[in-house]
Amino acid sequence: MPAPETSLDTLDTRILQRAVTDLAKKYEGIFSAETVERYVYESYATLSRTARIRKYLPVLAERFAKDRLRALAISEGKIDTVIPQVLFVCVHNSGRSQIAAALLSDLAGPDVEVRSAGSLPGSEIHPLVIEELKSRNIDLAGAFPKPLTDDVVRAADYVITMGCGDACPIYPGKTYLDWDLPDPTDQTREEVSDIVDQVDVLVNNLWKEIEAKN
Amino acid sequence: MPAPETSLDTLDTRILQRAVTDLAKKYEGIFSAETVERYVYESYATLSRTARIRKYLPVLAERFAKDRLRALAISEGKIDTVIPQVLFVCVHNSGRSQIAAALLSDLAGPDVEVRSAGSLPGSEIHPLVIEELKSRNIDLAGAFPKPLTDDVVRAADYVITMGCGDACPIYPGKTYLDWDLPDPTDQTREEVSDIVDQVDVLVNNLWKEIEAKN
Repeated sequence: MPAPETSLDTLDTRILQRAVTDLAKKYEGIFSAETVERYVYESYATLSRTARIRKYLPVLAERFAKDRLRALAISEGKIDTVIPQVLFVCVHNSGRSQIAAALLSDLAGPDVEVRSAGSLPGSEIHPLVIEELKSRNIDLAGAFPKPLTDDVVRAADYVITMGCGDACPIYPGKTYLDWDLPDPTDQTREEVSDIVDQVDVLVNNLWKEIEAKN
Repeated sequence: MPAPETSLDTLDTRILQRAVTDLAKKYEGIFSAETVERYVYESYATLSRTARIRKYLPVLAERFAKDRLRALAISEGKIDTVIPQVLFVCVHNSGRSQIAAALLSDLAGPDVEVRSAGSLPGSEIHPLVIEELKSRNIDLAGAFPKPLTDDVVRAADYVITMGCGDACPIYPGKTYLDWDLPDPTDQTREEVSDIVDQVDVLVNNLWKEIEAKN
């Protein structure tokens, strides 16, 4: 067998290992340590493939794994919740689905659990989207593009797709909606602002619909 | 909660569920049925995001999950093997890494276990690559583009990257090699043939190196 090579990612591995320990403790009795470890390292490998800034990769991987484990626990009935679960999916998870997720979170606060994902995740959130939402007092600082995974689809009561075709597996018992919206990529600040306005109307209507049903 | 919507993927779900049953039986005592189920559905969700032909999706998802479970079992020492494990990674897993995997399998047969993956998997194998390899009596019929996952990196003794930058997590104890090769995308048949010749030389040298070490 080949001689060990010096790892370039020693710091990454330390952060990931600590994430495994923390999350395994958090999910004790719900998921095995092996499942948690696999989720953390798979999340890291998945984000490595598309993330531009490698410096934050282990931190983002921890957050991604944490979100996915919660989604998995909800979908398997291991965490009981009556809070509606909403998933927004677009192509890059760097524009439309991030806008929708941010606006719905802002609107409904703790009365909703919101996730977002992309069929082909980009390397970063669209800067004009960050800027436009900032001007509306919405902070996207912690957001990052993530691929669509099975766990978040399963956890969702509502799945809203935007321009990602049939990339999203269809499971029974969920409400699927498709919103026709322009992609903010290569648009001007004014056009991005207009897209945010359009998303805002759709999100408000969606929230009314959800509230009426719950 | 919303009313159930008719699932478009009833047939898919049936095939996936049978895959779960078969693989859970195969891996009884090694992986729990829950782990197997998660692997099958995650593999399906992952391939959904990029595959062009949806008809074969559940079948490819089963094959992908099977390969990943084997890789996971090897990396965790749950399957013992002395056969060298080689992983080829390029950007789309539709050209270079497929060529290298096919040539090494053809050269070393059962004396090696070969996998391939892409940092941004394409929707299908490059048709000229299939054609060129067919002219050399190598059949790529069962191959399909797959994303790089943590399990296949962990199972590998040798990781060979081709043009995918630092998308591949670095773990100690593995030999990492980087091959500088042109991407067959948008190349003519003659250029593709030339790339296959270049890969052939590199694969032969690699196999000599692996044989010498084992």
